[in-house]
Amino acid sequence: MLPAFKALKEGLKVLPGIGEKSATRMAAEILRLPFDRAEQLVQGIGEARTRIGFCHDCHAYAEEERCPICQSSRRQSPLLCVVRQPLDVWTLEETGRFAGCYHVLGGVLSPVDGVGPDDLHLADLRKRLTEEPVEELLFALPATPEAEATAHVIMQGLPANKIRFTHLAYGIPVGGTLEYLDQRTLGFALDNRRKY
Amino acid sequence: MLPAFKALKEGLKVLPGIGEKSATRMAAEILRLPFDRAEQLVQGIGEARTRIGFCHDCHAYAEEERCPICQSSRRQSPLLCVVRQPLDVWTLEETGRFAGCYHVLGGVLSPVDGVGPDDLHLADLRKRLTEEPVEELLFALPATPEAEATAHVIMQGLPANKIRFTHLAYGIPVGGTLEYLDQRTLGFALDNRRKY
Repeated sequence: MLPAFKALKEGLKVLPGIGEKSATRMAAEILRLPFDRAEQLVQGIGEARTRIGFCHDCHAYAEEERCPICQSSRRQSPLLCVVRQPLDVWTLEETGRFAGCYHVLGGVLSPVDGVGPDDLHLADLRKRLTEEPVEELLFALPATPEAEATAHVIMQGLPANKIRFTHLAYGIPVGGTLEYLDQRTLGFALDNRRKY
Repeated sequence: MLPAFKALKEGLKVLPGIGEKSATRMAAEILRLPFDRAEQLVQGIGEARTRIGFCHDCHAYAEEERCPICQSSRRQSPLLCVVRQPLDVWTLEETGRFAGCYHVLGGVLSPVDGVGPDDLHLADLRKRLTEEPVEELLFALPATPEAEATAHVIMQGLPANKIRFTHLAYGIPVGGTLEYLDQRTLGFALDNRRKY
């Protein structure tokens, strides 16, 4: 294997889900790309790294000090949505069903992985909740034990009589079939069945 | 989605096996990379694109006019191995079981995809076979109908009395189990069973 190829392969292996084989195939594909596509890829990485930072208020991706959502006066609602990572903001925005603001934690508590409260944007969240007129805190976190524990830690430090805590509904994913669902999801889906 | 993020995502989507979701996750990971790793990735792409071309003789990857294998006097054997793509050379080299030279076709014949004889390095191959003292032509092509048809087209144009034509053995992949094997492979594996 040529050194330049090996270097490219190693560079690609830092990406998520890219192992030895995928990196090798991707490197070969990069060598096959027309010049302008390869250039586009290199520039894309450079531009994104240079231009994109994090919103000072909610820690979502931002090209300015504050993200477009935090800047928008229409989004100053009493509803604040807690998400794990910046990408989750866009995922929720795509539904077109949420008009509040977001707060990105930057992860969830995970003692096993060494992620403690100080590694997350928790202090900022508490500060926002005292300064902003938040009435409902919606946890749109993964449906994992770590995320649930994180939500509980956050709720414990806050006055429940002033803020309503909610989480995303659990249930069958649309298009999903029952046989692949775990008991817990199915139990939730049963208990929370809805009328046609 | 920020424009710079979208541009990076689109750049990544040209890679093999990278769809909308994977590209989005990869773009997010690239934003999370430490500066030096991101730099390594960008440089890796640039360096590979600048330094790596194709061997004038065998069409494998090469940083010079001829690849290290074609340059090596130890590799001028009477055995020539025909492969589909440059990567296959390295895959075979890794076995450490082949001491001959290679010839990269650059694909296999596929009328459906519009790949005809002129799209492959076939003329070069014929030229090599008249100029080099090749005694055996080993087809190390994929086990697909298209690749087999390609091998037959190549063989038809060559004198079978002067050159021995061989192909890789078919059989059970090491570590493979029978239930996932197709009938044809299993048939070959039975017919060509080997003594312990």
